[in-house]
Amino acid sequence: MESARVKPKNNIHTFPTQEQKERAAAWFETLRDDICAELEKIEAEYSAVAVAPFAGSVARSAEASHQQGAEQSRQKHVFQKKTWDRSTADNSPGGGGVMSMIKGNVFEKGGVNISTTFGEFSPEFRKQIPGAAETGSFWASGISLVIHPRNPHVPPVHMNTRQIVTTRGWFGGACDLNPVLPNDADTKAFHARLKQTCDAYAPDYYEKYAAWCDEYFFNKHRNEPRGVGGIFYDYHDTGNWDDDFAFTQDIGRAFLDIYPKIVRQHMHDPFTDADKHAQSIKRGRYVEFNLVYDRGTKFGLMTGGNIEAILMSMPPEAKWV
Amino acid sequence: MESARVKPKNNIHTFPTQEQKERAAAWFETLRDDICAELEKIEAEYSAVAVAPFAGSVARSAEASHQQGAEQSRQKHVFQKKTWDRSTADNSPGGGGVMSMIKGNVFEKGGVNISTTFGEFSPEFRKQIPGAAETGSFWASGISLVIHPRNPHVPPVHMNTRQIVTTRGWFGGACDLNPVLPNDADTKAFHARLKQTCDAYAPDYYEKYAAWCDEYFFNKHRNEPRGVGGIFYDYHDTGNWDDDFAFTQDIGRAFLDIYPKIVRQHMHDPFTDADKHAQSIKRGRYVEFNLVYDRGTKFGLMTGGNIEAILMSMPPEAKWV
Repeated sequence: MESARVKPKNNIHTFPTQEQKERAAAWFETLRDDICAELEKIEAEYSAVAVAPFAGSVARSAEASHQQGAEQSRQKHVFQKKTWDRSTADNSPGGGGVMSMIKGNVFEKGGVNISTTFGEFSPEFRKQIPGAAETGSFWASGISLVIHPRNPHVPPVHMNTRQIVTTRGWFGGACDLNPVLPNDADTKAFHARLKQTCDAYAPDYYEKYAAWCDEYFFNKHRNEPRGVGGIFYDYHDTGNWDDDFAFTQDIGRAFLDIYPKIVRQHMHDPFTDADKHAQSIKRGRYVEFNLVYDRGTKFGLMTGGNIEAILMSMPPEAKWV
Repeated sequence: MESARVKPKNNIHTFPTQEQKERAAAWFETLRDDICAELEKIEAEYSAVAVAPFAGSVARSAEASHQQGAEQSRQKHVFQKKTWDRSTADNSPGGGGVMSMIKGNVFEKGGVNISTTFGEFSPEFRKQIPGAAETGSFWASGISLVIHPRNPHVPPVHMNTRQIVTTRGWFGGACDLNPVLPNDADTKAFHARLKQTCDAYAPDYYEKYAAWCDEYFFNKHRNEPRGVGGIFYDYHDTGNWDDDFAFTQDIGRAFLDIYPKIVRQHMHDPFTDADKHAQSIKRGRYVEFNLVYDRGTKFGLMTGGNIEAILMSMPPEAKWV
């Protein structure tokens, strides 16, 4: 998928300044705050309706048997934060991150991580990273989110955007929907919203990045896609840092615009035990993808990253038949 | 762990005859039959006691909430067989196998696979396999078993033995216990039984193969062992095929002797929801090991093996917190 890389103007790669790196890191934190606030708002809206007597009785009866405790629906569901410091880990240079985790009625398990780390890639690894071959120095900042909703009609989602700096700098990210029970309207709305953002920057971004998403999030051993796609981009460097940063910000904003709409539309949908079983099976496929193929997960596991943060993407439960 | 390889006498490697290969393949089938019969016998014994009124009430009440249906306990639980043919898959030479799967009251999910396959390893892969560098030709036959019991006091187990033939032949295998709630007496009995078999062949086998097991079945990213060990051996070729075959047969017999004893001892143990939760978490670790590290699983996934047979090792369900 080398062809999907954006070519910098005049072949001059971006090398972000300290100030630019700080702006990127600050943005990922702001986006995290905005996403967490919106998802908490959804939890509050749901609980306000769901605990009312006689409300949503069909959905509630199926759901009740799956909830770990009846008191769940009366709790206030908010993100719990946990900070980790990379400098205390083995072979680690510096930086760290903050995990934010929610276990709610709508979002059975949701995690939003931000991190900013720096140091040197290992000799084996630096060959694979643009601009890292010589010294291996890197600086990386990003946000990573995985949501596993409770209701099988609310699609799980993954979103991640990042700035990486070696002897050059680029943005990368992904935003993809992984429904248990795919719904054409949701899939179309999700893609359309991402396309809208892509089209504002270049006419070919959506096509390239949507294709890259389909190629990347694919369980080869089952010959089946992980989800219904979205976008995946990497090595995004047009030579204009401000433009590329704005694009990455807008991908985050697009996610924050479209995903809550889809959630609100389905969070009260009735579901059956068979739907819940299908959800568990689908979650198993998600586990397979992340442990067998996902570059971020594999890299993290192999290089002694923060295990809790890396595996926050795992679903709350999964089944195999 | 190169040092754990057995050195053939006078450095002359075994090259099994057609008759020897057939004997090995026939043995794996016999062992499969004996194991399935014994595990089905355990299911029948369990049901005879468990469905009697008032019997095992503590265990039953905790278990009932986890069983998928009450009718389960009255069904006769036997292995279901499914044959697969390798010649129909992509890039495949020949052979095939038989999966045997049980979903019972004692064995929530258990699989026993046998397979005999032959052909040529891919050019990249053949360098890694002793005696395969030149032509890549191989013949392989073996049995592979993974049991995920329902009661968290009954330990999950893995057992696999095989004969591989390239321009030389050797045996390999593993037999390891993966308890949710480790019990010293079980661990000691399991190891003692394997040591008894090892000691009948050479004084250093147990120490070498138990150490290899601990090294191999280890979740490096969590810095924790997958289970409480057992033995792992590979490239086992003393230069005396009959001796090596007898050793591999006796490892299978040792499994068939000790594991059912451990199961019968614990299958009626009462357990709590907390125990069941611990079991789900432990199953997640099992998933992580198999998808991230296990050579057989990775090889199978990457080379288009029979997905259903390869992933039969997955637990029925798993949880991540």
